[in-house]
Amino acid sequence: MNDQIIKQLLKAWNAQNKAINTFFSKYEDDFYSNEIAPQRNRAVYILGHLVAVNDSLLPLLGLGENLFPELQPLFIRTPDRTVAEIPSIAVLKEKWAQLNQTLDAHFAKMTAEEWLEKHTAVSDADFALDPLRNKLNVLISRTNHTSYHAGQLALMR
Amino acid sequence: MNDQIIKQLLKAWNAQNKAINTFFSKYEDDFYSNEIAPQRNRAVYILGHLVAVNDSLLPLLGLGENLFPELQPLFIRTPDRTVAEIPSIAVLKEKWAQLNQTLDAHFAKMTAEEWLEKHTAVSDADFALDPLRNKLNVLISRTNHTSYHAGQLALMR
Repeated sequence: MNDQIIKQLLKAWNAQNKAINTFFSKYEDDFYSNEIAPQRNRAVYILGHLVAVNDSLLPLLGLGENLFPELQPLFIRTPDRTVAEIPSIAVLKEKWAQLNQTLDAHFAKMTAEEWLEKHTAVSDADFALDPLRNKLNVLISRTNHTSYHAGQLALMR
Repeated sequence: MNDQIIKQLLKAWNAQNKAINTFFSKYEDDFYSNEIAPQRNRAVYILGHLVAVNDSLLPLLGLGENLFPELQPLFIRTPDRTVAEIPSIAVLKEKWAQLNQTLDAHFAKMTAEEWLEKHTAVSDADFALDPLRNKLNVLISRTNHTSYHAGQLALMR
């Protein structure tokens, strides 16, 4: 029964990632240099942000190092257009695909018990106080995070 | 262990609703008549949409009738500014609060087994083929849906 719920949560995670794939396959590369709304982030920046945020699932879930540590300073807590140059949409799409392949391979091997273990950013003491601060919680919140930005991307036309 | 996962999912659901509450308590009522971006939905419309969509959880989860059936034709599959008048932000905020109170009272009583039952929009035959089409799936997708629109609202300033 637990396995089924984990399966459902992974299905929701995959559905959100698929929506991002669909959006970034829909237009010519140039389109993604446009802002989602006047004076807001560019679509290309949002893709970089999603890669950087989800890449951190690897260390957070104890699965390894970030694949793309060089993206962390560019896309986390750094607003768009702070640095002169960010990777191209083509490069970011490739990294996004590579990251999802890596995460999916790890997730396919994780048991329900492992999902309920503490993630690496919480101490043993804090986890004892709040056992909901587990790996599954990170998956749930990252799925919602992707949806949050998908809603913004949907405003572009 | 199941109970814990359900608890986590309800926590994520509540966190998204709370973010909506925070956003709609932040400004004077007039502010919410603004569009989230040029020629896109108004914030007040998005709140109406969230009320209407989440109100349908009641029949979908077999918990009762919609509290506000009159909102369905206004906010589901009807783009903003299709009808001359929609309820005011004050009225919608009240309905949103009332709805969440009602849903929370129901959710507090639901067992893990009930969450894994089929929802009312899927037939027995289809559910036998895909047991992931359960009530929990509806909760997960509605949580992501709220986050999707929260991302859009966050573009306003």
